[in-house]
Amino acid sequence: MVDQVLITDVVLRDGLQDEPIAVSTEDKLRLAHGLIDAGLTSLEIGSFVHPRKVPQMADTDALVARMSGTPAMLHTLVLNEHGARRAVAAGARHARLVVSASEGHSQANAGLGTFHALDRLALAAEVLRAGDVRIEACIATAFTCPFDGDITPARTARVADRLVSLGARVVHLADTIGAANPSQVASTVIAVRDRQPSLLVGLHLHNTYGMASASAWQAIQLGITRFDASLGGIGGCPFAPGASGNIATDDLVNMLHREGISTGIDADKLTVVRDQLAALVGHRLSSALASVPAGPSAFRG
Amino acid sequence: MVDQVLITDVVLRDGLQDEPIAVSTEDKLRLAHGLIDAGLTSLEIGSFVHPRKVPQMADTDALVARMSGTPAMLHTLVLNEHGARRAVAAGARHARLVVSASEGHSQANAGLGTFHALDRLALAAEVLRAGDVRIEACIATAFTCPFDGDITPARTARVADRLVSLGARVVHLADTIGAANPSQVASTVIAVRDRQPSLLVGLHLHNTYGMASASAWQAIQLGITRFDASLGGIGGCPFAPGASGNIATDDLVNMLHREGISTGIDADKLTVVRDQLAALVGHRLSSALASVPAGPSAFRG
Repeated sequence: MVDQVLITDVVLRDGLQDEPIAVSTEDKLRLAHGLIDAGLTSLEIGSFVHPRKVPQMADTDALVARMSGTPAMLHTLVLNEHGARRAVAAGARHARLVVSASEGHSQANAGLGTFHALDRLALAAEVLRAGDVRIEACIATAFTCPFDGDITPARTARVADRLVSLGARVVHLADTIGAANPSQVASTVIAVRDRQPSLLVGLHLHNTYGMASASAWQAIQLGITRFDASLGGIGGCPFAPGASGNIATDDLVNMLHREGISTGIDADKLTVVRDQLAALVGHRLSSALASVPAGPSAFRG
Repeated sequence: MVDQVLITDVVLRDGLQDEPIAVSTEDKLRLAHGLIDAGLTSLEIGSFVHPRKVPQMADTDALVARMSGTPAMLHTLVLNEHGARRAVAAGARHARLVVSASEGHSQANAGLGTFHALDRLALAAEVLRAGDVRIEACIATAFTCPFDGDITPARTARVADRLVSLGARVVHLADTIGAANPSQVASTVIAVRDRQPSLLVGLHLHNTYGMASASAWQAIQLGITRFDASLGGIGGCPFAPGASGNIATDDLVNMLHREGISTGIDADKLTVVRDQLAALVGHRLSSALASVPAGPSAFRG
């Protein structure tokens, strides 16, 4: 049974990239340091995407440079060779290659089908390896796609194979639209691990349809110990504006602690950072805990 | 593996009892008939509690009488002998005895400790049996209590034993404050079933801490096939005003259908009734699906 989980908080990337107003680099740094102070050891802080495409991520280079030396692992998304060069130049130690398992989402996002996009990512991976950047990867639409529907476990497993061949030692399976059901998550995790027994498999879940905690719990039963999560649950699904976002770091930490699974995270400090985030974005957060009135509770981790 | 689940929608009781404004009997009837038309075969429609204590439930007698002859199973809560007499007089065919597993909640709600409250319920059970009303039961704070903290599985199992001896053939374990974690739900379900192998055990979950779908999924792994749920997820926890309410019927149906588990419920018709409910209560519903933009989706059951 799992007794420890590594949570990567992705609020600075997946959370803030969907906010209508770009948060300043200074405010991002304050959030990042608050999270690290609360015990987070892994953060996804930005994306080397074109600033015209996602202006909220335009300061990723600056953020990586200014956070060099922080004890936490700092992840960024790399979508192509140019992004890889930016990652190396900024001094990134870790980067996550991103590809969509589904043809439809890959075409919409990368302008290429999945396996052509992987060919192009090979160039990015070369740049990262040469720059001594540790490669991880994230498979978007690993379970379900807004265009193609359900994705077979075999297809996602083939994508994972290719990412391993590009040097990824960790692959996060992303339920981009938050529609995966728990046994679908299980089948895909099993298919990936069957073919890549030494690969570290993580999950990136969204709560659009209210199934994120069920899928996380199912994954824990399978021994998964790496989860992406976003403080306050922000970070919507672009295909479901207004819906719940990522699985919330605060909710996931609470469930894990209640289960006796350690995360190294101080839930009280996390609450303080979540309140700062709420003030910054100026709207209701979507984590369950954000709506539970403050005060001591026996039921928080 | 479970292939069919019986959902009891409790919106007319647990949902509406927390609304600041009482919904009219006519509107309740419209909702009830909408739910039945959507395929629900089991509804909890009211509570024989004193109308001064919960004015929203004052029309329970009328509702039961006016719905006699509907094909669905109609449940009501019975808290004492007087409530049992009202149930019989109204022509109820089913009633649910309610008791709190925790001493603190029982004292606060019933003015008596758990086992004294059970002694008093024995009188109610006698009235129900004499009136040929089928007895079910609901154990409040079966896992966690706002006053006493976590409740041991053994204690909840002892309460279930007493309810069985009073004639209950089905016992719903209620996570009144929505703080139970999945393996806690599992331990308690197992403890109850170990002592009462022929008892039908159901779950009544709240999503206060975002763990309801995880616990439901865990319970399904254990073969549980009966769930209470509330349309739109309304029905807050009185100890956490503003927090998420009951596990949402719409979300649960979606997860079960995605899992290939049948419920007999038409998800599209359910959405129509949910929209009527939203108009009636005049506020945002807390189900995840209520926030997913309308339109066809491959990911709804």
